[in-house]
Amino acid sequence: MLTAAAAVEPYCSDWRGRYHGRARAVLRPGTVAEVAAVVAACSAAGVAVVPQGGNTGLCGGATPLADGAAVVVSLARLNRVRAVDGDNDTIEVEAGCTLAALQDAAAAADRLFPLALASQGSCMVGGNLSTNAGGVHVLRYGNMRELTLGLEVVLPDGRVWDGLRGLRKDNTGYDLKHLFIGAEGTLGIITAAVLKLFPRPRRRAVAWLAVADAGAAVALLGRLRATAGERLCAFELVGASALELVLRHIPGARPPLARPAPWSVLVELADADPAAALDEQLAAVLGAALEEGLIGDAALAASLSQAEALWALRENISEAQKIEGFSIKHDISVPVSRIPAFLAAADAALQERWAGVRIVAFGHLGDGNLHYNLSHAQGEDNSALLARSAEVNRIVHDLVASFGGSISAEHGIGQLKRGELPRYKSALELELMGRIKQALDPRGLMNPGKLL
Amino acid sequence: MLTAAAAVEPYCSDWRGRYHGRARAVLRPGTVAEVAAVVAACSAAGVAVVPQGGNTGLCGGATPLADGAAVVVSLARLNRVRAVDGDNDTIEVEAGCTLAALQDAAAAADRLFPLALASQGSCMVGGNLSTNAGGVHVLRYGNMRELTLGLEVVLPDGRVWDGLRGLRKDNTGYDLKHLFIGAEGTLGIITAAVLKLFPRPRRRAVAWLAVADAGAAVALLGRLRATAGERLCAFELVGASALELVLRHIPGARPPLARPAPWSVLVELADADPAAALDEQLAAVLGAALEEGLIGDAALAASLSQAEALWALRENISEAQKIEGFSIKHDISVPVSRIPAFLAAADAALQERWAGVRIVAFGHLGDGNLHYNLSHAQGEDNSALLARSAEVNRIVHDLVASFGGSISAEHGIGQLKRGELPRYKSALELELMGRIKQALDPRGLMNPGKLL
Ligand SMILES: Cc1cc2nc3c(=O)[nH]c(=O)nc-3n(C[C@H](O)[C@H](O)[C@H](O)COP(=O)(O)OP(=O)(O)OC[C@H]3O[C@@H](n4cnc5c(N)ncnc54)[C@H](O)[C@@H]3O)c2cc1C
Ligand SMILES: Cc1cc2nc3c(=O)[nH]c(=O)nc-3n(C[C@H](O)[C@H](O)[C@H](O)COP(=O)(O)OP(=O)(O)OC[C@H]3O[C@@H](n4cnc5c(N)ncnc54)[C@H](O)[C@@H]3O)c2cc1C
Repeated sequence: MLTAAAAVEPYCSDWRGRYHGRARAVLRPGTVAEVAAVVAACSAAGVAVVPQGGNTGLCGGATPLADGAAVVVSLARLNRVRAVDGDNDTIEVEAGCTLAALQDAAAAADRLFPLALASQGSCMVGGNLSTNAGGVHVLRYGNMRELTLGLEVVLPDGRVWDGLRGLRKDNTGYDLKHLFIGAEGTLGIITAAVLKLFPRPRRRAVAWLAVADAGAAVALLGRLRATAGERLCAFELVGASALELVLRHIPGARPPLARPAPWSVLVELADADPAAALDEQLAAVLGAALEEGLIGDAALAASLSQAEALWALRENISEAQKIEGFSIKHDISVPVSRIPAFLAAADAALQERWAGVRIVAFGHLGDGNLHYNLSHAQGEDNSALLARSAEVNRIVHDLVASFGGSISAEHGIGQLKRGELPRYKSALELELMGRIKQALDPRGLMNPGKLL
Repeated sequence: MLTAAAAVEPYCSDWRGRYHGRARAVLRPGTVAEVAAVVAACSAAGVAVVPQGGNTGLCGGATPLADGAAVVVSLARLNRVRAVDGDNDTIEVEAGCTLAALQDAAAAADRLFPLALASQGSCMVGGNLSTNAGGVHVLRYGNMRELTLGLEVVLPDGRVWDGLRGLRKDNTGYDLKHLFIGAEGTLGIITAAVLKLFPRPRRRAVAWLAVADAGAAVALLGRLRATAGERLCAFELVGASALELVLRHIPGARPPLARPAPWSVLVELADADPAAALDEQLAAVLGAALEEGLIGDAALAASLSQAEALWALRENISEAQKIEGFSIKHDISVPVSRIPAFLAAADAALQERWAGVRIVAFGHLGDGNLHYNLSHAQGEDNSALLARSAEVNRIVHDLVASFGGSISAEHGIGQLKRGELPRYKSALELELMGRIKQALDPRGLMNPGKLL
């Protein structure tokens, strides 16, 4: 238990430095029994609990409120890999295990754990589960939710639910684990999970392509899915201004193609079969697409280092945008088929309002998930954009809703979007969520002020 | 609305003819608004509701109780395919659409809807969702739950929850759809769903192999997964006595290999790529396994009709067992790695008790899901076995539980296993299920006497 102000402080701010709260204390249990004891004691005393993993969440979900009434329960010490079952393709890990440690344990057993995030060195399994984390390989492997077979949870009254099953098929009643996944710590503390493992990919093919517009990218996605099937493991869309920022700000970044294009696509195929002819397969689809005029130029990585250089262009967009200055970010999804219409409508609405504002759109097109970000117009400064944040969010999120989309594809609600939820969720859905909360945490002690 | 005894009667017995109930009336709404009106009226009158789809369920879940207090609501008329979105790889269908009609609609859009059951001509989407149906391709594509993106549900008070999202990523609160999937109609009536579509496989390779024991089959599964990855779309284990019954009772069935083996495995690879060299890939893995002594003989299907003949051996086991006489069936799962130990323990326990009883074990080894069935000993008759059902179930299910398994891998609980649930689920898990039920259906009007 930490109580000294200096020790408690790091647990009371979020990764981005946007939220700052206060806590009575930070508790760092090292066993499930200790987690249960902590929660039972809080329950008895009527003290609110804020579960915290790696504290890399982007919505303030792990940051205590300013009232200082809650304790933070850090899962960082509960970090064992409990068991790897190769023949069952499963791994059992504790909530405080970092994502990177989990990936390493899978690799040591010659398996892949496919979730991959830029924050993987710090974020933890319990946080990944509670935010239903995504990333670049969701197209093939699904979100954290789809990777989960079983959970162990300390309930708000301190009792432990053992749902640690390693089964692909189990139809014996309500599937309770899905309540806790994505619940952002509002229904209990996840202490361990049984997760799926996959064969390791032994072969990869990566290409960077120029496309005229998002519609062409969607059509290309369809072509690739039709023949590459599950080998298609990433399909990332990158707008021209996103690539420009990377080329301007990131040392060593080089243009992947001879001429700039309005949109680029980064494609990756992967296969467990070491003999798979992925380059040939990718080249065949791209050749046909080129002839049809569906894509412009294309660069196929000829080596691992070329593949990494192409990926670096994609992965450095956030960093480049940060160097450029303040940006307004949206973590949104719409059905893949509606991405082109959404982009057209959003661009038009924003440009009409603020001519010259730079739209930095990129993301996981294969999942319908875009980072639809804005940087200030050339010549303008950050503060002008900052002042418009709420107005911009409203325009973008209203459009997302009108296209049947989600205002939080990956990161959750936390404190950040809690106020927006009633605008975009039906009253009935909010009521149902409230009834579930009431059923499992009737006293509202689990992570109050978040999500709901 | 049907009220005449002769019209109501067919809705009051289950497919196997094991459960017979009574109903006040059968309602057959043709629109979502009509479903809502029916449920609202029942709610107002305090009348219980039994949702029914194709009535092919194997646990009595869709059969009203004998007290005759409930009405049956048949979804059969609510059967439109509402929309296919090719670029989003999704289809929106109503609950009364048969699984076969759904597969056809997907095929018409050059896509695959992968769920496949022997009952597919009759069972319906709402029933598939409410039982979280499985089948032979779960290994690759998952259960019905994994195939679902969005739901529309008429709640117990008649209000309609519109959760019809076609999104791969949406982290805006509790994922309510997972409550209704697998709930066997106890939380509301599902009226429509948005489901995932996949590229159609253009190439297949099928083989039948002899293995010495289940351990060898598990090892072979690992080898195949490691190189074939997601191409591996079926891995079925067949015990010697199951194959014997098929060869004895099914006209035209021929031994797939020269010599009988203690266990057989049916393997299928499939690929969307029409150029995929699946036969070669399969032959390579099997050749290596043969050399190592992991498998005995192997037969690779050289034509579609040969592939179909191999599949028919697997698919006719239930039919052959029915011809043989009464059998005790178990729909169980354990972790794949524990299948060999479970089989050894269960066989020993049963043989010790009833020497000569025939164990007819087969099923989806790739999912850890077996049909662990018993036929009477040669020379004995059905009644002796019948009399032992409860005792046999107890032995098998206790062992399943001790191996961390499930007493209902595919078919659900319904009326059939409701009594057994408290023995195999923790009191805490049952309490949580009860709290969910209470939160969504406080008056207990949805399918009473089932599951909970
Ligand atoms: C550089 C960077 C890149 C990122 N990229 C991605 C990305 O690509 N995709 C993506 O989805 N996210 C991404 N994120 C966001 C973040 O990393 C994920 O949300 C991650 O899953 C959070 O894990 P964490 O352990 O840090 O959780 P925390 O931040 O500690 O907590 C997140 C939420 O989960 C709750 N919680 C944590 N542990 C538990 C537990 N054991 N039981 C119950 N509740 C718990 C907290 O209360 C909080 O509400 C990124 C973040 C950064 C900083
Ligand atoms: C020959 C045969 C082979 C089979 N093979 C398999 C198999 O391989 N794998 C497998 O998993 N199952 C199998 N089954 C079982 C059965 O087909 C499945 O459980 C199927 O999903 C049931 O669908 P249904 O429409 O017939 O549902 P029903 O039998 O009508 O109902 C099943 C349950 O769901 C509820 N329900 C139905 N519709 C709704 C709705 N719209 N909203 C809410 N609740 C609803 C009912 O109340 C009941 O509890 C098989 C059955 C047969 C007869």
